[in-house]
Parts: sequence; structure tokens; C-alpha cells
Amino acid sequence: MNEGVIMARVFNFSAGPAALPLAVLEQARAEMLEYQDSGMSVMEMTHRGKHFSAIHASAMALIRELMGVPDDYAVLLMQGGASSQFAFIPMNLVTDRNQTIDVVHTGMWSKKAIAEGRKFANVQVIASSEEANFSYIPAQSEWTPTPGAAYRHITSNNTIFGAEYHWQPEAGDAPLVADMSSNILSRPVDVSRYGLIYAGAQKNLGPSGVTLVVVRKELLGRNPDLPQMFDFSVQAEKDSMLNTPPTYAIYILKLVLEWVKAQGGVAALEQRNIAKADKLYAAIDASGLYSCPTRVDSRSRMNIPFTLADDALNAPFLAEAEAAGLVNLKGHRSVGGMRASIYNAMEMAGVDALVDFMADFEKRHG
Amino acid sequence: MNEGVIMARVFNFSAGPAALPLAVLEQARAEMLEYQDSGMSVMEMTHRGKHFSAIHASAMALIRELMGVPDDYAVLLMQGGASSQFAFIPMNLVTDRNQTIDVVHTGMWSKKAIAEGRKFANVQVIASSEEANFSYIPAQSEWTPTPGAAYRHITSNNTIFGAEYHWQPEAGDAPLVADMSSNILSRPVDVSRYGLIYAGAQKNLGPSGVTLVVVRKELLGRNPDLPQMFDFSVQAEKDSMLNTPPTYAIYILKLVLEWVKAQGGVAALEQRNIAKADKLYAAIDASGLYSCPTRVDSRSRMNIPFTLADDALNAPFLAEAEAAGLVNLKGHRSVGGMRASIYNAMEMAGVDALVDFMADFEKRHG
Repeated sequence: MNEGVIMARVFNFSAGPAALPLAVLEQARAEMLEYQDSGMSVMEMTHRGKHFSAIHASAMALIRELMGVPDDYAVLLMQGGASSQFAFIPMNLVTDRNQTIDVVHTGMWSKKAIAEGRKFANVQVIASSEEANFSYIPAQSEWTPTPGAAYRHITSNNTIFGAEYHWQPEAGDAPLVADMSSNILSRPVDVSRYGLIYAGAQKNLGPSGVTLVVVRKELLGRNPDLPQMFDFSVQAEKDSMLNTPPTYAIYILKLVLEWVKAQGGVAALEQRNIAKADKLYAAIDASGLYSCPTRVDSRSRMNIPFTLADDALNAPFLAEAEAAGLVNLKGHRSVGGMRASIYNAMEMAGVDALVDFMADFEKRHG
Repeated sequence: MNEGVIMARVFNFSAGPAALPLAVLEQARAEMLEYQDSGMSVMEMTHRGKHFSAIHASAMALIRELMGVPDDYAVLLMQGGASSQFAFIPMNLVTDRNQTIDVVHTGMWSKKAIAEGRKFANVQVIASSEEANFSYIPAQSEWTPTPGAAYRHITSNNTIFGAEYHWQPEAGDAPLVADMSSNILSRPVDVSRYGLIYAGAQKNLGPSGVTLVVVRKELLGRNPDLPQMFDFSVQAEKDSMLNTPPTYAIYILKLVLEWVKAQGGVAALEQRNIAKADKLYAAIDASGLYSCPTRVDSRSRMNIPFTLADDALNAPFLAEAEAAGLVNLKGHRSVGGMRASIYNAMEMAGVDALVDFMADFEKRHG
């Protein structure tokens, strides 16, 4: 810590970009001017040199290890966020304009996947919780899949409405594609069930600006004349180094992955995430002031929306929370009230502080 | 500086990602754990909050100020590097597969623009220096433009072969599109001559992972059904915040732009860049050991390739240079020998150290 500077780190409940582990930021700070024996910052390094090549290889190996990625899957690091994948995925997997993309519609992100998918194929909504403001995940028994669909798309956790899959779908006759942006690495996943998994980094993986894609190799190369940057097969062949990658974002990703491993891996983080979420939901359910709109079987461990009995209390709640060092709690306008995003990097101490604050606020205003 | 840590920063002649101003890295280090009164790192901030919004707005305003961008141009910050622009630009500017893209072919980057452009239109090479290993820039009088071309593309500086435009082309009857990745902000440019200017950040603007596009507004909206992330008109309308932008890269970009302004702006940097390049070319021309393959009227101020009279001396040159703290001098395999990239952030002290080393090496080995 810099001499004479009093740091005042807050508990940051942002939905994304989101809190990072303090240890990661401290290491990044220590290495900012000189990485190892390189004489320069990671930001200044050629991506073809030995230092960055080692960072890149380490990030790739850690993804495979922590997620248990089978050998017949390619791991890609791309740019443009999940929003670009809404186009890249149909460009790579749809081979004919008349094919159908099946989508399970569970919120704003699946809505965007639908809108972009329609530019490349027919899109069939095979299940939806829209009628209940996306407050639950439709069971697989309620799906009406299209035979021979190009692929079948789910959003494994809904950041805005706070609904999460607590079961892994059966793939069926079409490759299962999952946007895991907001719960990746928060719980073990059986990668072999999926044709393709993708995730923007800025919730559980690192800073914004790098996007993870894990794709079964047999799905590569369906469309030969794609622009190279959009082509998963070219990116796989070039190990995501076709052009200059977002080097600093990948360096931070590597540090986060090392931190995940040091915590005991994804299974250990899952236990911690369950404990954090359970504590917050219990506090909400026990209170007379707070309530959570999400159906109990679909409640997200990552994003926990809750409303106050009186909307007039929202402003004082947010102001007093911020004064107590609890920030970015304002809910998305489509749900209202509050939202606490408690990704991997949120410590139990942050949840404890929030629960204590909520109880105290209720005592004074409830 | 951390107590007890001896920093050993080198002079980094990397072609990109490249050296950044030390003051920028020092500020990034100081703010890594807590940006202003936010209680968090810039990497952890929601892009919709007041702190990041101010960073983003400041970066946008500084680009306009430093480049003198007219009001009828949009400034975009995108992801994917210049390589993605090789596809995005024809997707946005070509309206019919039978149209023609004119390209002035001056090296590896124009070659890639040609290859990607052919996926969307006819591509006509209207001038080329390929027959001379791209060692010069063809004069505009040698161009054979296609009447009614969708656009006319140049690469303002060739990173690999070290040839740079020292004149600004006349636009003619088609919008002039320029890949300025490797000399942007190194010299004043009359933006109004161009329909579109683009640049990956990792040479003169900041870290990799953010791409600048400056585009005349009347060129927007030609193709209505593009994927939103690729659509310049949507990106302009959303002020490049359609989805989560690469926030940390934009923060560093802002710091670099502030540094450029503090140096006296682009005109002042141009004078320094001329002095740096003149000194290095003079040393090469005066020596019996070193020579530069680039035609004198096209010699780049940013990337200076030079060969040694005896290729057997390449390995000792690189090893001794590295031991002297002068790194990343190995030339690209298509030219051989050495390449010194001396972007804005390379101080005169670095050029002096290189020139001194070269003279000493010649004395011992020449």
C-alpha cells in the first residue's frame, strides 16, 4: 500500500463489471511497471514474446483445468462480449437461412440472442418465463424443441431478473449453446453436455474486454468464408492469436483463474456461493420489509433482486447503504428495488455487512 | 515506487503492443485499488456509473480535440482490433456485392484488408509497392482508381516494412478509408479528407483491446440489418456503450490522451518524432554496417527497419542490445535484420541509447 494513502475499499455489488479479488488487484499493482524480469508492463509487451505467450498459455490451461474441458473442445479468447457472440454463434453454426435456432427465453439477454439470431435464421422460442416477468426458469419438460434445430440456446443465469438454472439441460438432438456470462466458474458444469459455452469476462472471470468461448471441435468449420476474426475454426487454429489479443485483460483473467484455483477450485467456490446466497435470501425471507420476486427453485446465487415494501424507501436505502460502504445496489429498472450481485469475488464479509445493514435499516424504517 | 524494489525498466522497441508513457503506468498503478473516491478499481466499475461515464466522456472529448475531429464525424470505440475492421468496414460501407473496394497495397496489413474485403465485394488493387518488397508508398499520380468505388483504402504507415505516407491523399470520388493503427496521433491529420479512419490502440493510443473509428456521419446507416455490435450507426447512436465496453483499456486510453495533450498535442509530438527518426536514420546512413531498405521519401517515423551487412551478426546484435536494456529489436521475418519501433511514448533517451549502442557494436564488430 502506498505510504500515507488511506484506502477505503467498498463492498461493490455491481452486476458487471464487478468486484475483483483484492489479491488480484494487488498483484496487478505490484507488476504494473515491470512484469517479472521483462523490464516492462504486461500492457507494453508484444503478444508474440515469451512473457505474454506464457501468460496466455497459463490462462488457457487453467480454464481447461478449472472447468474440466474435454480434449475434443476448443477454448477461445475473443473480443466483443456476449453481445458479439449473439452474431458470431449463428454465423458459425447456422449453414442455411431456413434453419431454426431454438431459444429458451428467460430475460433481456435471451431477448438479444433472439433478435440477433433472426438476422441469420428462423428463431423459435421453445419456452419462456416472460409472462411472469422472467421470475423463473422453465423446466425442460415444458420445452417444445424444434427437431433438427441448428442449435438450442439457454442463458444459464439471468443477471437482471435473478433466475438461474440449478439443473443442466439434456442436449437432445441439437447442440446446446449456453450464455454463461454471469455464473461461469461459480459452480461445476458438465461441459460435455454443451456444444458451445460462452461468457463475457466481466462478472466472474476478470475485466471486460475478453470473452470466453468453449466449443466442441466437431462444430467448427461449418461456414468456410467467414471473416477470419469471426471464425471459430480460424481462432481455434491460431490459438486465439490471429491478431493482437486484449493482452492486459487476459493477464488479469489469468490472475483471477489462479485465485480461483487457490480458493480450492470451482467446487469450493460453489459451497461458498451457496452459503452467501442462502444467508441473503434467508434475511430477505425473514423480514417484513424486503421480498424477492424470484421463484424459490430458480433463485440465482449470483444476482439477488429484492424490493422494499414501500418504494419511497428505495432512495434512503441506497443513500444509507452507500454511506455504509455498500454500493451499486440499485436494481435494474425492469425489476425495480434493489439487486445485490455477489459473484465469486464477493466475500462473505460483504454479505454479512449487507445483511446487518438491511436489518438495521428495517429497524429504523420498517 | 515500492520500497526496496529496484525497478529496471528497459527501452522497449516493440512494434505493438508497445511502450507506454511511464507517467501513465505510474498513475494506473496509484489508482489500481481505488479510483478517486469510488472505493474500487476502474476494472470493477459498472460502465453505467458516474465514474466510468466521466472517463469515457473525457476520452471521447480528447480524441476530438487532439485529432481536430469535425462535428459531422462520429467517434467510436470498438473491440476486435483493425483485423475486425477489415470486415466491419465493408459490412457497413458496401451495399451491393458487385461494388468495388479500391485498395492501395503497401504491405501485410493492406493484404489482409484485401482478403477480407473480397468476402463482401470486388477488390481492385489500384497501386502497389509489392514488386519492391513494400519499400515505398506509391504516389497518388500512380493510382488507377475505380470510378464509383464503394471506398478507397490506404494504410497510412506500414509497421512491418517501415514505409509511411508523408502526404495526405486527395479523396476523389469515393470515401477515403485509412488504417492509421501505427501512426495515429504521431502527426497532424486533416480528418475532413477521410470518410473513415480506424486504428487499433496498441501502438500510439494505449493497450490492445480497444479500437478507434472516426467516421463521417453521412456514411452511417447504409445497411440496416447488420448485427448491432458491427453496425457503426448503432454504435454511434449508443455512444459506443451498446454493451459493456473494454473499460480498463478505455481508462488507459484516456490517460495516454491526457499525456499527449500535456506534451503539447499532436503537433509537438510530431516535432519530437521527426527528431527521433532523423537521428536514427542519420546513424544508419552514416554507418558502414547498417542499412535501411526503405526508399528515402517513404521512410516511416514510427517503424525503422535496418539490416546488418552480415546476417551472422544479427544474433550477437540482439543479445548485446538486450543486455544493454534495448529490447524487441528483431525485425519481422519478411524484411529480416532489425526493426526499431519508436512510437510517441519512446523518449529521445531511448533513441540516443540505441544509436550509441549501434556505434559501439559497429566499432567492435564492423
